[in-house]
Amino acid sequence: MNSPASNPEQVPKAVVARLSLYLRELQQLLNDDTHTVSSQVLGTRLGVTGAQVRKDFTYFGQFGYPGVGYRCDELIAEIKRILGTDQTWPVALIGCGNLGQALLGYRGFQKQGFDVVAAFDISPKLIGTEVAGLTVQDIQTLSEWVDKENISLVILAVPAEAADQVVEAILKSGVTGILNFAPVTLKLPKRIQVVGVDLAIELEQLAFGVAKFN
Amino acid sequence: MNSPASNPEQVPKAVVARLSLYLRELQQLLNDDTHTVSSQVLGTRLGVTGAQVRKDFTYFGQFGYPGVGYRCDELIAEIKRILGTDQTWPVALIGCGNLGQALLGYRGFQKQGFDVVAAFDISPKLIGTEVAGLTVQDIQTLSEWVDKENISLVILAVPAEAADQVVEAILKSGVTGILNFAPVTLKLPKRIQVVGVDLAIELEQLAFGVAKFN
Repeated sequence: MNSPASNPEQVPKAVVARLSLYLRELQQLLNDDTHTVSSQVLGTRLGVTGAQVRKDFTYFGQFGYPGVGYRCDELIAEIKRILGTDQTWPVALIGCGNLGQALLGYRGFQKQGFDVVAAFDISPKLIGTEVAGLTVQDIQTLSEWVDKENISLVILAVPAEAADQVVEAILKSGVTGILNFAPVTLKLPKRIQVVGVDLAIELEQLAFGVAKFN
Repeated sequence: MNSPASNPEQVPKAVVARLSLYLRELQQLLNDDTHTVSSQVLGTRLGVTGAQVRKDFTYFGQFGYPGVGYRCDELIAEIKRILGTDQTWPVALIGCGNLGQALLGYRGFQKQGFDVVAAFDISPKLIGTEVAGLTVQDIQTLSEWVDKENISLVILAVPAEAADQVVEAILKSGVTGILNFAPVTLKLPKRIQVVGVDLAIELEQLAFGVAKFN
């Protein structure tokens, strides 16, 4: 029942994005004591058709049961396995200003399998201070920490003017993925994947809702 | 060329979400001096088919030109009109701790048509202090500010334990939309729309990329 059907390189970005959304809905359903769900109902919760839901999952295997639909706990486990979040990822935070400190306090990461194990900054004022239980480290020691803690992902929460200096340290380390909150486009070799966070998108969705329905 | 074809209530959430993504891609294309784009190319950038792109836009009108595709500047203007961000929205920020202060410094909101005009907190320690050029106001004065500044949207950046007190103030005001960073599910009447921000989703997408391609 779980033979990944295709090369992950061929999975469209939009499908992977929907996996996260399916995961959240399934976690919510299970929370509400609902243990099975049809592709139709799951799709409706996200504004896609049941056929789209079924098609999305065919990239990764065969998960539903005829006449039953999906078992929530089972599908949650499968999606986490596909996304790679069935294991906890050690993550480094770079940039311990307001945003960085806020992100250190953000419980959503831990809940979904991401553990911030080290925090870094370039400022001598911050290095050595304690933030959310972590001692802020000098960015120059990133590479050692990455090796020691087996870190592949970093969360980048620095202002634009610090980005260049920080990218240099990232390039020297074994980091392979960056979640970028810095308001700049990072120029990086292909081996390092970047996902940019654009908080205005959520606000646009809200504006649409408010503008049209009130 | 721009007769909205259908009732906005019938537009699937996923379509509205894609509008924001199309908008970003079009802004990027224009930035790179590309002035027209086919539905096929626009779709490929986001991992959907050209047919899906064309279908998404049929909810709102007819925007492309045969043999040309879409004109980027024109489609940007149309999407902004649809989303309601062709005009600037005055926004209030509630919660001026680390996250709130980080969000006040976040330039992406302004760039996409959202102007944070007032900031609020419940803590006497913060009320009256200045953050990013705004004087932090007492949450009890929210209603007056909402009327005076014509605010419909608020960004909620408070810890879970402050949420109840703040929701009470929001209910007494004319606010109709909340972008919620607070790690709680808000119980609100239907007239108030809520969009929750889940930063772990972006990290999951990154994990998928890093796990599969390295």
